[in-house]
Amino acid sequence: MNKEIKKSDFVQSLEKGLNVINAFDMDHEQMTLSDVAKKVDLTRANARRILLTLQHLGYVTSLDGKLFSLTPKVLSLGYSYLSGLPFRELAQPYMQELAKEINESCSMSVLDNSDIVYIARVHTKRIMTISLGVGTRLPAHATSMGKVLLASMDPMEAAKLIGQMKFEELTPFTLSKNAFIQHLDVVRKQGWAISDQELEIGVRSIACPIRDKKGKVIAAINISGHASRVTLEDLVKKYLSALKDKVEKIEHALINL
Amino acid sequence: MNKEIKKSDFVQSLEKGLNVINAFDMDHEQMTLSDVAKKVDLTRANARRILLTLQHLGYVTSLDGKLFSLTPKVLSLGYSYLSGLPFRELAQPYMQELAKEINESCSMSVLDNSDIVYIARVHTKRIMTISLGVGTRLPAHATSMGKVLLASMDPMEAAKLIGQMKFEELTPFTLSKNAFIQHLDVVRKQGWAISDQELEIGVRSIACPIRDKKGKVIAAINISGHASRVTLEDLVKKYLSALKDKVEKIEHALINL
Repeated sequence: MNKEIKKSDFVQSLEKGLNVINAFDMDHEQMTLSDVAKKVDLTRANARRILLTLQHLGYVTSLDGKLFSLTPKVLSLGYSYLSGLPFRELAQPYMQELAKEINESCSMSVLDNSDIVYIARVHTKRIMTISLGVGTRLPAHATSMGKVLLASMDPMEAAKLIGQMKFEELTPFTLSKNAFIQHLDVVRKQGWAISDQELEIGVRSIACPIRDKKGKVIAAINISGHASRVTLEDLVKKYLSALKDKVEKIEHALINL
Repeated sequence: MNKEIKKSDFVQSLEKGLNVINAFDMDHEQMTLSDVAKKVDLTRANARRILLTLQHLGYVTSLDGKLFSLTPKVLSLGYSYLSGLPFRELAQPYMQELAKEINESCSMSVLDNSDIVYIARVHTKRIMTISLGVGTRLPAHATSMGKVLLASMDPMEAAKLIGQMKFEELTPFTLSKNAFIQHLDVVRKQGWAISDQELEIGVRSIACPIRDKKGKVIAAINISGHASRVTLEDLVKKYLSALKDKVEKIEHALINL
């Protein structure tokens, strides 16, 4: 879905370098040169030059010259993006209040092609396992936030994007492309969306859009919880009004931004 | 302070690409090709190839082909680092409790050369202006978290790092290098540190280290507030015990991670 490019314009070593950064994760916190070469599909010589360059620039560190890991400097790259979203900081205290009131997680996301990307998240103490954080990507079609974000797009643009989306069946409840398109009309009318175990069995969520002072949707916010605690009725009867109340407060605060 | 590199090993276009990403910020959310070329000191041809490559890879977007901005995909780069720090997620609810109890901001950071880098932050509704977020860098010598992190390092390593640090006098209260070295002995003994308007006039903070189950310091946590609300006495008499209480709970939770 990304823009086409002429081969002569493409800076391949930039792609390789970004792929090397992305290769590090929770299960690959430290990697050798060979690990990196293998994971990113590079020659050892290429992987070596990229790791040494990233190390020289301060994005990668190695205590022994063998095991490499990322440094906090890579946060500056993501920070370049987040600092352009001042509403995020402003919404955080309201998200904390909400998570506290309902004792379930509260998240904020934006759309990036066919995925939603978390830009803020407040979770409760209940979640002791490693959970989804800022930067996590989830398929839009299976999430409540994805639904409200797609519903808020220009219908032509949304149709084009949906046409390109894969609609992977993540659970037996995940909507098909056709069902999704029909469902989106409902979401557009009601102004909120639910995901009932469409992303993962056991996870229910409800989302609303957040609008700037011009009425443009700039992000989505949701409440999510485990189906054993949160019934569908709870979502619509209890959580929706709590969510709407905070959205109103955030949008009011946005006017003064 | 970064590792030396042979010229033949250095991938210059990777450096240029990362610099272009870093060039976007709150005041430069959207930039033209010329803006980017000027800000990063590149030729127009170079800036163009890098922007087109980043656009092709999905890190940059442009509605009209003239104004470029970052996409949420850049968060994946920072996320590669954060996902390697599971204690961050675990500490968040305790940080939220603390910020709520004392009605002041609570932050967590790690050291990256002579700077601290925020890896988590919970602020109160009081702060309505854009504040410091994850990824923000501050000079270690002027901050309470920088002090506890430097104090927790191997003394030889710390001395080497301090020797290379600049000790910019940010306010009349910022410590000189010599005063800082003496002060660090006190911090080492007492196990916590204060910054009394050493970073910015009007800002006071108190920090403690967080240790993993092996006793190794993995991050620092602090409370900060405006000097007009938070006296030095408050910091030590009221906030220190609240901070220590949460650190104990976080460290206890870390044992089970």
